[in-house]
Amino acid sequence: MTEIFELSLTQLDRGLRKHDFSLVEVVESLARRIEDREAETRAFTSLDLDRVRTQLDQVPSQSRETAICGIPFGVKDIFNTSDWVTAYGSDIYEGHQPVSDAAIVSQLRSAGGVVMGKTVTTEFAYFSPGKTRNPKDLEHTPGGSSQGSAAAVADRMIPFALGSQTAASVIRPAAFCGVIGYKASVGEFPLNGVLTLSYSMDSLGFFVRDLEDLQLLRRILLKQGSSPAPVKPRRVGLVATPQWSALDKASQSVIEEVIKNLGAAGVEVGEVEVDGYQDIDLIKAHKTVMAYEASRARVVELECHPEKLSKQFFELMQQGCRITFEQYQEALAQRDLANQRLTETWLNYDLLLTPSAPGEAPKGLSSTGDPIFSRAWNLLGGPAITLPAGVGQKNLPLGIQLIGRVASDDCLIAQALWVDQNALPSTTG
Amino acid sequence: MTEIFELSLTQLDRGLRKHDFSLVEVVESLARRIEDREAETRAFTSLDLDRVRTQLDQVPSQSRETAICGIPFGVKDIFNTSDWVTAYGSDIYEGHQPVSDAAIVSQLRSAGGVVMGKTVTTEFAYFSPGKTRNPKDLEHTPGGSSQGSAAAVADRMIPFALGSQTAASVIRPAAFCGVIGYKASVGEFPLNGVLTLSYSMDSLGFFVRDLEDLQLLRRILLKQGSSPAPVKPRRVGLVATPQWSALDKASQSVIEEVIKNLGAAGVEVGEVEVDGYQDIDLIKAHKTVMAYEASRARVVELECHPEKLSKQFFELMQQGCRITFEQYQEALAQRDLANQRLTETWLNYDLLLTPSAPGEAPKGLSSTGDPIFSRAWNLLGGPAITLPAGVGQKNLPLGIQLIGRVASDDCLIAQALWVDQNALPSTTG
Repeated sequence: MTEIFELSLTQLDRGLRKHDFSLVEVVESLARRIEDREAETRAFTSLDLDRVRTQLDQVPSQSRETAICGIPFGVKDIFNTSDWVTAYGSDIYEGHQPVSDAAIVSQLRSAGGVVMGKTVTTEFAYFSPGKTRNPKDLEHTPGGSSQGSAAAVADRMIPFALGSQTAASVIRPAAFCGVIGYKASVGEFPLNGVLTLSYSMDSLGFFVRDLEDLQLLRRILLKQGSSPAPVKPRRVGLVATPQWSALDKASQSVIEEVIKNLGAAGVEVGEVEVDGYQDIDLIKAHKTVMAYEASRARVVELECHPEKLSKQFFELMQQGCRITFEQYQEALAQRDLANQRLTETWLNYDLLLTPSAPGEAPKGLSSTGDPIFSRAWNLLGGPAITLPAGVGQKNLPLGIQLIGRVASDDCLIAQALWVDQNALPSTTG
Repeated sequence: MTEIFELSLTQLDRGLRKHDFSLVEVVESLARRIEDREAETRAFTSLDLDRVRTQLDQVPSQSRETAICGIPFGVKDIFNTSDWVTAYGSDIYEGHQPVSDAAIVSQLRSAGGVVMGKTVTTEFAYFSPGKTRNPKDLEHTPGGSSQGSAAAVADRMIPFALGSQTAASVIRPAAFCGVIGYKASVGEFPLNGVLTLSYSMDSLGFFVRDLEDLQLLRRILLKQGSSPAPVKPRRVGLVATPQWSALDKASQSVIEEVIKNLGAAGVEVGEVEVDGYQDIDLIKAHKTVMAYEASRARVVELECHPEKLSKQFFELMQQGCRITFEQYQEALAQRDLANQRLTETWLNYDLLLTPSAPGEAPKGLSSTGDPIFSRAWNLLGGPAITLPAGVGQKNLPLGIQLIGRVASDDCLIAQALWVDQNALPSTTG
């Protein structure tokens, strides 16, 4: 029999409405799972199961008004919470208690969601890792920066979790842990009350185990009446990036199999060039924008507590301080030029396909892996989804990344549903 | 003899370098001015002159490293400050003490600037006024939302102040109080640590009494080596908006005189249509985006303290909650369409000209006036500057608004310098 903790958000909601189980049973099942697994996975930075139980008492069990009413979720520890310490992955903010919730946390709570705990983030959502381990193999990184959220959802400790992405902080950990990661279009959701790393690129992200959960969450947060049914794309553009050589063999095979399956289903696949051709270098532009903006956004920590910054973060700050305003503006102009050219691409393609990461989660916890396959897309601002697709040589999860047009998130999710049902490799674990 | 408190930022820096006066003399002159005027103007929400004096002791008086070293400035009370209460103009946050400075405050402080105090803001930078009165006539509104910053600079209590704009919160109070207001391009400066009203439109603003001060501040904040000299525009576009009929006679005369002066100096002037023609209604789109985003960004206050919100703010929230995601997306599409069409306009025009407000500051303190002439530009995201230009029937200041291309702020300021020197009405008070 399937345990309750294994159910997706959509399945939990369905089961609750059918009275297959109660909210208390849901929470107790998740609590047992956490008690079993947390010592190994280390997904949470703050956790208090009794507090969750108390909060549950306030949820009207008879009349759940929304699909997340009473459902526990995880919150990356760069999102402010009025009742949980929020330390942004930094020693500087040890024990820091914000006065109010981040807007998105407040929205989920007012829809009845219950914060299960704060999940581990890298320092200021950059590269310096936290304590979380990959639940698929504890000796491997779960990726970053939203590492606790990805690992907790992958390890069935919570049905969904909040994350954020500036380089690859949703797509990469989701792919490494074998769950679905969705990075929303820039500006799609409010980010106030969330630590700023890059003010032009930070985006909200969700981790789930069922694509329909993304539609469910969007219906609640955006007050949408309904969600589109799966949409078969007419043409998919495979993005051949200059980083293609970084991709390992198993990941190449997965992409090839997806292309084969798309073709077999009657979907045309073409090659699309976005980065690294003509005069465009989006990876470089992304690094410039990230370092420049981070060094401005986090000037307080650099000024007041430089000794408490990791070497990696301190170097990012130093690097950002050396970037001139003109160089920064040039990088933004590269972004605008690429988006302008993409306008034409979107006339010919409905969906773009790229790898989520260079391969499986690397061994060791000292690095969160390479964000190379997400940087360009994050700069461009559109939505991205990673779907678990096959496994690598070490039997760890791989992912494919689907990219949509800026502010066409619903359309991307509808197409991802179709791809998920019709074009994934048969080897998907 | 000119009193020290009357000097602009640039003049203060020059005088300090020439040892015409000391930093202590600067601060004492400003302090006396505040003691004289603050009871009438009510520009500050927190003020502690002794604390400012203590902070001054820490400034190395012999080696001022930047032009703002030791210079006091005002900070709108929606910017977090680690050592001043920050209440966002709301009863909900009475006595609220943030843990750290907003990024931009930290940047100014690390360049040696000294916070003179927090300036009055309307509630959450929206319409419900604070206590500030217009220093040119105490029975008139100073405008909003950055009312304390505008009034304090106009009343010579500080040489410059920080503000922010979502509708007309910099341009309007600057025009009403007779100072220079500059609303930066969206994304030009970090806004973390500043209360969010609209996450796609909030922009940083500065109040000064000399255009060169804007260049000085940008050189410091953006680490620019030099600033462009005044630039004579080749062609200026007069924006005939559907709101033109809202403009009073005196303001119309000012615009006409500016056009005449531009023509006499050999600058071509043409008419440009941006809003209210064909299928574009930017005022409506602005209202939609503002209400939608505000209701998401400020969900915490709506959920937890609805009884402490003003009627005006509560109505904005209610209105925002009724806007669907589709309506919001349509409004953003209007913005994108208008900006696309403006791309062509910018091939023919170097600078756009519009009124700053419908006329002089209205009588009474219960309203901050009409933001009608700034809404569209704020939605579009580019930089704007208001220059004092003439006076109205009641002898209160009027302003003209200059609009630049998105992210071309330096260019706009350089052109504003030329306009200021060559094309303002002779009646400018």
